[in-house]
Amino acid sequence: MTETVARLAPVGLAWRPNGQVVLSGPLLRLARACDEAFTVLADVWRAEPEEHPALLDAEALQAVDFLTSFPHLASFAGCLDAGEENLRDFTAQPLDDSGVRLTRLAPVRDVLTPAACYHVYVHHRGESLTAPMHLTTLNTCFRRETHYLPLRRQWTFRMREIVCLGTRQEVTDFLRGTRELVTALFEELALPISWEAATDPFFQPTRSPKYLAQRLRPTKHEAQYGELAIASVNLHEDSFGDAYEITRAGSPVTTGCVAFGLERWLFALTDRYGADPYAWPDVAAMARRVAGVASEAAAP
Amino acid sequence: MTETVARLAPVGLAWRPNGQVVLSGPLLRLARACDEAFTVLADVWRAEPEEHPALLDAEALQAVDFLTSFPHLASFAGCLDAGEENLRDFTAQPLDDSGVRLTRLAPVRDVLTPAACYHVYVHHRGESLTAPMHLTTLNTCFRRETHYLPLRRQWTFRMREIVCLGTRQEVTDFLRGTRELVTALFEELALPISWEAATDPFFQPTRSPKYLAQRLRPTKHEAQYGELAIASVNLHEDSFGDAYEITRAGSPVTTGCVAFGLERWLFALTDRYGADPYAWPDVAAMARRVAGVASEAAAP
Repeated sequence: MTETVARLAPVGLAWRPNGQVVLSGPLLRLARACDEAFTVLADVWRAEPEEHPALLDAEALQAVDFLTSFPHLASFAGCLDAGEENLRDFTAQPLDDSGVRLTRLAPVRDVLTPAACYHVYVHHRGESLTAPMHLTTLNTCFRRETHYLPLRRQWTFRMREIVCLGTRQEVTDFLRGTRELVTALFEELALPISWEAATDPFFQPTRSPKYLAQRLRPTKHEAQYGELAIASVNLHEDSFGDAYEITRAGSPVTTGCVAFGLERWLFALTDRYGADPYAWPDVAAMARRVAGVASEAAAP
Repeated sequence: MTETVARLAPVGLAWRPNGQVVLSGPLLRLARACDEAFTVLADVWRAEPEEHPALLDAEALQAVDFLTSFPHLASFAGCLDAGEENLRDFTAQPLDDSGVRLTRLAPVRDVLTPAACYHVYVHHRGESLTAPMHLTTLNTCFRRETHYLPLRRQWTFRMREIVCLGTRQEVTDFLRGTRELVTALFEELALPISWEAATDPFFQPTRSPKYLAQRLRPTKHEAQYGELAIASVNLHEDSFGDAYEITRAGSPVTTGCVAFGLERWLFALTDRYGADPYAWPDVAAMARRVAGVASEAAAP
């Protein structure tokens, strides 16, 4: 932990012990260049940008078993019950040795964004699509872990996603095409990456039918830099289409997404190229080159 | 509420009943143009961008009496105690009629960002400055209210701030100069705005020495569009410098900030210019003009 921070502090990394980073200077510019690169790849699909909020309705998330599948990862947003006496009790001693001494909470109904793309499916709930829909969104995600490491494993981090909702064929074409683009970007960047089948980190995995299904037929593949997954390609089949009644020609749509963990890209790039910003590659320009080649190949 | 949403849905507004918006299409582009405009104004001071995370350590916030002053506005991030039995109990029935049926929480130590600039003071804790420091940061802020209105009063919203840490003279010069820039931008935009002295929304204000001090000597001025504050200019004197031991020539620094509520700008601009994107002004270009005039005036 201290090694990463010591190496990158001069270029704009600071670590908060609650599992978060502050970015400034060259490292913040690199983060923006990475996100620009992901956006360039999204543009290949003419993905429409959407900006989603921080909180997700817990009931909507539970429609896809989120709370039962990932209770250990979830962060909830809670506010104090607004009764005057309750607030006064709180202010009498708001902190003690174990942190905030909460008094009575108002009903908790919201989960802090666990992954950027959940918002997309909830937002398009009930829609009948007539063509494949490509979207892209960036959000701050919250994932509680037992320990944190700067840039690699954080309570809050930024995730860019490109999402496709369509027929199974359209979605698998999107996932294959995007994986090829991302692979071409890794080659431009001379980043050693291996694609590996993976599973989501379920609670009590061996009791989870969803985990067992993922093991039997991998629907998640991660681009690993060493042991660090910096991007993933995910086929959800029709689970979101079914839960949120998003249809295509009368049937639940298939969905798939490609996700990029922004801080992890910073780790991989500075691990590969060092802490001197002059040695860093122009990630966005490389993405434009990759996207240009792809567009030409697709041209008539 | 429904009126704003009905009017702006075709240009990319969606409302979540938990007090949040989803932005896409023309309205998302307008939001980005507004933020670009604020950044152009920040550039007049060569303000360095910083990207701060979502959570603030509660103990650090309480160093400036946040929890006792604003307990009714605070949102806390809580996670379930990670014990297997506790998580299993939770998954047995994660929801009931009153929302999430939380089982035992792990100690809560973090508050969701209440205002973008708090992070800046915590981040620069303990520093000795030798010159005025200008910074700018955008963050998602959380403010619990008794009721919400799309774009005007939300649980989560985006706030851009320009912050100055320096001597009292430097900070008051910064605040006066920025207020002039913002006023010039309002004139370019033909937005009817009045600047009004204001107070922060303290809990039990008449019992709060800080509220009484703000009443006696206003340190907060808001730019109001109708009754909606869309920007504010704030002088904190040395309260942050003192609490976080940020010094200049051996004394606590004075701090001040200018804050812009992004969603509220969307409300004001679409209220003034209507829902047709072709009628919307080029906010960023106007900010560049205003900033250019200011830079020329400052040139030798």
